Amino acid sequence: MQFHEVPRFPRGFRCASRNIGLKPDAKDLALFVSEVEAPAAALFTRNQFPGAPVILGRETVQTGGRLRGILVNSKVSNVANGEQGLKDARRMAAAAAEELGTTADRILVSSTGVIGVRLPIELIEAGVRGMSAELQDDPLLGAEGIMTTDTHPKALSIRVGDATITWVAKGSGMIEPNMATMLAYIFTDAAFPAESLDGMLRAAARVSFNMLSIDSDTSTSDTCAILANGLAGQVDSKAFSDALTAGCLRMTETLARDGEGATRLLRITAKGAKTASDARKVAKSLVNSPLVKTMVHGADPNVGRILMAVGKCFDATIVPTRTSASISGLEVVHLGERATFDDKQARTVLSAPTIDIIVDLGVGGEAATAFGCDLSRGYIEENAAYYSS
Amino acid sequence: MQFHEVPRFPRGFRCASRNIGLKPDAKDLALFVSEVEAPAAALFTRNQFPGAPVILGRETVQTGGRLRGILVNSKVSNVANGEQGLKDARRMAAAAAEELGTTADRILVSSTGVIGVRLPIELIEAGVRGMSAELQDDPLLGAEGIMTTDTHPKALSIRVGDATITWVAKGSGMIEPNMATMLAYIFTDAAFPAESLDGMLRAAARVSFNMLSIDSDTSTSDTCAILANGLAGQVDSKAFSDALTAGCLRMTETLARDGEGATRLLRITAKGAKTASDARKVAKSLVNSPLVKTMVHGADPNVGRILMAVGKCFDATIVPTRTSASISGLEVVHLGERATFDDKQARTVLSAPTIDIIVDLGVGGEAATAFGCDLSRGYIEENAAYYSS
Repeated sequence: MQFHEVPRFPRGFRCASRNIGLKPDAKDLALFVSEVEAPAAALFTRNQFPGAPVILGRETVQTGGRLRGILVNSKVSNVANGEQGLKDARRMAAAAAEELGTTADRILVSSTGVIGVRLPIELIEAGVRGMSAELQDDPLLGAEGIMTTDTHPKALSIRVGDATITWVAKGSGMIEPNMATMLAYIFTDAAFPAESLDGMLRAAARVSFNMLSIDSDTSTSDTCAILANGLAGQVDSKAFSDALTAGCLRMTETLARDGEGATRLLRITAKGAKTASDARKVAKSLVNSPLVKTMVHGADPNVGRILMAVGKCFDATIVPTRTSASISGLEVVHLGERATFDDKQARTVLSAPTIDIIVDLGVGGEAATAFGCDLSRGYIEENAAYYSS
Repeated sequence: MQFHEVPRFPRGFRCASRNIGLKPDAKDLALFVSEVEAPAAALFTRNQFPGAPVILGRETVQTGGRLRGILVNSKVSNVANGEQGLKDARRMAAAAAEELGTTADRILVSSTGVIGVRLPIELIEAGVRGMSAELQDDPLLGAEGIMTTDTHPKALSIRVGDATITWVAKGSGMIEPNMATMLAYIFTDAAFPAESLDGMLRAAARVSFNMLSIDSDTSTSDTCAILANGLAGQVDSKAFSDALTAGCLRMTETLARDGEGATRLLRITAKGAKTASDARKVAKSLVNSPLVKTMVHGADPNVGRILMAVGKCFDATIVPTRTSASISGLEVVHLGERATFDDKQARTVLSAPTIDIIVDLGVGGEAATAFGCDLSRGYIEENAAYYSS
């Protein structure tokens, strides 16, 4: 798959972002717009304390739902604010609808940031006014407005037939999405009904966003939406679905690499598993293990920790004497025992920007890959004062 | 329950420890001895890559098993060494048996430290010689020999009727025990058959060691054994069981407080749960959440993270509008919303050496308490170079 060097929007999509005073200086409000109504599908967090925008979003983006725009603020997530939170989310949708000359049920809203602080809704209502005059073609502009602890805005795009697919996302912390990652918006000018979008999005998220974990904590705001405005007409659905999955995977890696405090991308594949569920479980166990993550961070070839993290999947089919593992091509575990390898070489592969750990369980044909990052002092520093800073 | 100010052994138990060259200077071998054979019970890790000492230990300590001694080395854990590892574990037991004039099936061996490095068995065989002449009454001596990254040796004792119960343990990292904590040995001169010991130990571990998590990683070496040599005769079994549980809880808190990099003890209770399983799940979810742990570390009242960690228990019965939470007596969440409280006061309770978070799910009568610690830069530093240092 060939991604554009500079991300661009499909026909009919544009965005704008502003600082409206939620953060001291950085952009904190982003508006994404389709010039025509677009069939849409979305996945939301499975966290049982969903934010108000998620509750409202589920209502708005049903199968068959259509969207004109997405309004997102950062800094405050509008979670755990009860009825007031839901009212504020509705006001936020209404404000965007007014700005775009549509109705509130055509707007998806998202809020990301601190949990349990009331949304400064007046600032948002005032802040969105006039944004439709600032809409531009650069998806990175919108990506800037939705950042929290992300170190850079994240967008990418790809061509499929005559159409384009564009991703704009944020990640960083509180990320073990369960349905979607924290915030990911996908725009395309291909024509698909909402039902097809829903199915393709679920399939793509299953192998990408849902296999991502920065820190094993599932956000209350996870949202992944796709809007297809149809301006490019019909596109081969197999090609589209492949491109959608490829882009979701690429964005997942981008989010993992920029996890809070991260210095490396960690890709962990469990293969030779008896069941697909075992493969996912083992890959996730490694990607979430603090001891595997700190081993990678320190480039310390303490490879026995790989077996520890495999072995703590109590209900997976694991046969120690059939289990092998490699780190970026270097075999470090051979049939349940530490392989003979050079510590220095192991330190070298563990120091690369991307670390591929492959565990072969040797008991079947199923495989899964999980995405994450190392665990560093930076993670602690960012999260020991997130509320106060 | 009144624990002794200075821990002591029950009648007939003694220990010794030495540096035998596994570590540069610190003690690295400990021998615990009962002067008569003691009925014993033990719980071992559920990790599917158990160390050789665990495999051998299961064989040795069956229901009805009897023990004369425990030999433990630190620095190398004898895990992932295949058949060679098992042979080395057997040689280790034989060496202790020879020193004590008994047979190898009366010896429990444990090894703790790096995974996947061959045990220096010759050093251990030579090192144990003459240790029986050095046996002393102080359990802390043995506790010194089994430390890895623990910052202090851990032992405690309590009187029950005419008998004494003594705990010696180590903890620190790779700790979410699942059957027992990393290494915990319990000695008593009360008389109980192995079957009763087994039942009482399981009951005590269920609410103590099995509710401990330093870092969500389950060790391949977890072992918790109890030896009852009977020299004090029979003791009321209810009183004994209560004391056993109280000591296991106390030791669990000691281990949590000394978790790798820990600066605080974190006690998390989930009450008002629909099922006991829900209560355990929610308490464990909070105690394992990096974002709850870093909030405590930074004394940052980012209390919405508590709801996030409750809400990510997808299959527990959670009703947001019935969920409340407090931190050391300060209500921070009231029926699903952030309560009105003073940030400064929250910072004060979060700065105490012990933090009690109580979540009331408001949907039933079950409760459970989990034990852990904060997540600090110290954890990262210790674990990014554990193998190399």
